[in-house]
Amino acid sequence: MALINENYLKLPGSYLFSEIAKRVEAYKAANPDADIIKLGIGDVTKPLPEAVITSMHKAVDEMADEKTFRGYGPEPGYNFLIEKIIEFDFGTRGVSLDMDEIFVSDGSKSDTANFQEIFGVDNKIAVTDPVYPVYIDSNVMAGRSGTLGADGKWTNLIYMPCTAENGFVPELPIEKADLIYLCFPNNPTGTTISKTELKKWVDYAKANQAIILYDAAYEAYIQEEDVAHSIYEIEGAKEVAIEFRSFSKNAGFTGTRCSYTVVPKEVMGYTAAGEAIDINKLWNRRHATKFNGVPYIIQKGAEAVYSKEGQKQIKALVDYYMFNAKLIREGIQSTGIEVFGGVNAPYIWLKTPKGMDSWSFFDKVLNDVNIVGTPGAGFGPSGEGYFRLTAFASRESTEEAIKRFTTKFKL
Amino acid sequence: MALINENYLKLPGSYLFSEIAKRVEAYKAANPDADIIKLGIGDVTKPLPEAVITSMHKAVDEMADEKTFRGYGPEPGYNFLIEKIIEFDFGTRGVSLDMDEIFVSDGSKSDTANFQEIFGVDNKIAVTDPVYPVYIDSNVMAGRSGTLGADGKWTNLIYMPCTAENGFVPELPIEKADLIYLCFPNNPTGTTISKTELKKWVDYAKANQAIILYDAAYEAYIQEEDVAHSIYEIEGAKEVAIEFRSFSKNAGFTGTRCSYTVVPKEVMGYTAAGEAIDINKLWNRRHATKFNGVPYIIQKGAEAVYSKEGQKQIKALVDYYMFNAKLIREGIQSTGIEVFGGVNAPYIWLKTPKGMDSWSFFDKVLNDVNIVGTPGAGFGPSGEGYFRLTAFASRESTEEAIKRFTTKFKL
Repeated sequence: MALINENYLKLPGSYLFSEIAKRVEAYKAANPDADIIKLGIGDVTKPLPEAVITSMHKAVDEMADEKTFRGYGPEPGYNFLIEKIIEFDFGTRGVSLDMDEIFVSDGSKSDTANFQEIFGVDNKIAVTDPVYPVYIDSNVMAGRSGTLGADGKWTNLIYMPCTAENGFVPELPIEKADLIYLCFPNNPTGTTISKTELKKWVDYAKANQAIILYDAAYEAYIQEEDVAHSIYEIEGAKEVAIEFRSFSKNAGFTGTRCSYTVVPKEVMGYTAAGEAIDINKLWNRRHATKFNGVPYIIQKGAEAVYSKEGQKQIKALVDYYMFNAKLIREGIQSTGIEVFGGVNAPYIWLKTPKGMDSWSFFDKVLNDVNIVGTPGAGFGPSGEGYFRLTAFASRESTEEAIKRFTTKFKL
Repeated sequence: MALINENYLKLPGSYLFSEIAKRVEAYKAANPDADIIKLGIGDVTKPLPEAVITSMHKAVDEMADEKTFRGYGPEPGYNFLIEKIIEFDFGTRGVSLDMDEIFVSDGSKSDTANFQEIFGVDNKIAVTDPVYPVYIDSNVMAGRSGTLGADGKWTNLIYMPCTAENGFVPELPIEKADLIYLCFPNNPTGTTISKTELKKWVDYAKANQAIILYDAAYEAYIQEEDVAHSIYEIEGAKEVAIEFRSFSKNAGFTGTRCSYTVVPKEVMGYTAAGEAIDINKLWNRRHATKFNGVPYIIQKGAEAVYSKEGQKQIKALVDYYMFNAKLIREGIQSTGIEVFGGVNAPYIWLKTPKGMDSWSFFDKVLNDVNIVGTPGAGFGPSGEGYFRLTAFASRESTEEAIKRFTTKFKL
């Protein structure tokens, strides 16, 4: 009898975005003429940079010619891309990495979800709250979560609240954590922590033989000086941290799919008997067995991100979205609503006014000004009372949204 | 302390292809002028079909324009591709499938490796022997294998030998199997089984509430009438079988990465308590949580495979490789060596002559005629005494290889 993985039965439905869609549909049906502006899902809207387009066309042509055609590529990615990653994303920040410490993949979502597979079931997982749901769901599937309590928390996970009260800076857990998911600039709150704060986590991990799974998918949006672009800027991090990076948000690759994961050879995991095991080797085995590389055409597109023109073009993209972020942040602030994030990230995290809960605020915003955001409660219990807006819409839509907020929205 | 998944430590290194590479390098170093022909790895060599190239160029251009740019796509794949798959790959064979029964992904390797995740650890796994190593390795990682014995077999797996003695037709296992991996046309043997034989497996699965994981990546190479292109041509299969299909070998997508998996809604898995659970829903949850869709550009390329020109062009590709297969099969046969496969598949499976073991034959072929093949022992204990050649090289190389075999190779 084929037995299922019963951990899957513990998972609630992917409630958040389907519930949003349902409410938007219902509103549309009742108000067919409403001009709804979507500032909900974290998906980009600007086209791919010209340098990427040019490079992909060239790569497509290579695939048409027997002399330049590419079949199976190396599973961890082509050297032409890995070299650029090491030089531009790390070398410029004083971080040196070896070629075999980079694993190119099809998305940070996949990698942050898959990485836990190389660890045992009996690890204690720590996550910030609110959090990107994939970190939790993948651990539920693997059997590390315990059960979901009435408080919205899994009994076996460690939650580290990030709220206005603590300035969105997670505190070191009292209970010992083995695997710690951190995401900075943060999705969903759009906030960051200082290098000094990040150093505390590296030290914690070293002291506890823990590993930090560091999601830096929004790194390109960092504007301020004291925010680390890579966790490896922090002393000692190469011994305890895995870093996830993506081309989705800096170069608009959400529908083009390319990312990479850094697994330094110094990072060690342990057997139950206490033997230190090279995590890089385990991930390499997993990557080579359960994955077959990113399309050549896509890797050539990603390579172009590092060309002179590419660098200029992605800077322009980030500037564009960050100006939207500024418009949203300042616009909302002017209405008297408390606003966080949006300085080093494309997400703006509002405190819902008058103690309104996330979903009531969602409904009010949809009804009053026809804008769709994301209820903070969808990202975890500590997201209750918050609301996320994204800077990824067009300038025109963003300006119109803010005009409505500032002129039509009544608390 | 971060504990590793200790199942990984059970895995032997990916010995096969690295050992081949090592021996070839050593030979090259000693014989720098040798003209080595590689008929080893199952990678295609002909460029992508023109229809695919045209479609991908168009898709790249769409990504350059804000009006047609695509961000996140639906995780199971775009409807434009799924519609074509259902119509061309199944409708034409009398198999009807719903849109939500197809999951587009980045490769059959990924899907055949990942699919086991939705099943419990306590399932008994059955594999043919020899076998595509990914089925086994992914189950070792998940903790279903037991330990590796001196006989090259994992203690907790069921092996179904496929050798010349049984005509490469696996026998139903005596011990009850819960998950059964079948691959037809077979990699590595290049052999197939009749519809009547396949029906026995469907009946077995139904009788035992087992599930068949059916890898049909080489379907396009089928030439004979009595070989099923899809397992769903067999009555009852939609209740017990998952089918893996790929664009790698029919359209040359090994470096372009697109495939799909069919998960009929009738297929049920079971809880330990015996409750039937819809496998389609579990896989959908896994796919949406740990994967983020295939690049839009690549899916547009795959769609073009189903255009009138695309269909003609992939037929020409398959015909090209199958003529190579015929040359190899007949050429080797003429030397007195026993040959299998190569009729409905691009793989030719030789019985090594004079009781030579696979690796000794590998060395002899490399030394005597400078041809690289794959030792059958690398695919499992029952592969010992066999040797795989592929039809994926150019016509020129294939002809030259056969010329050397027939004129220079001395037993």
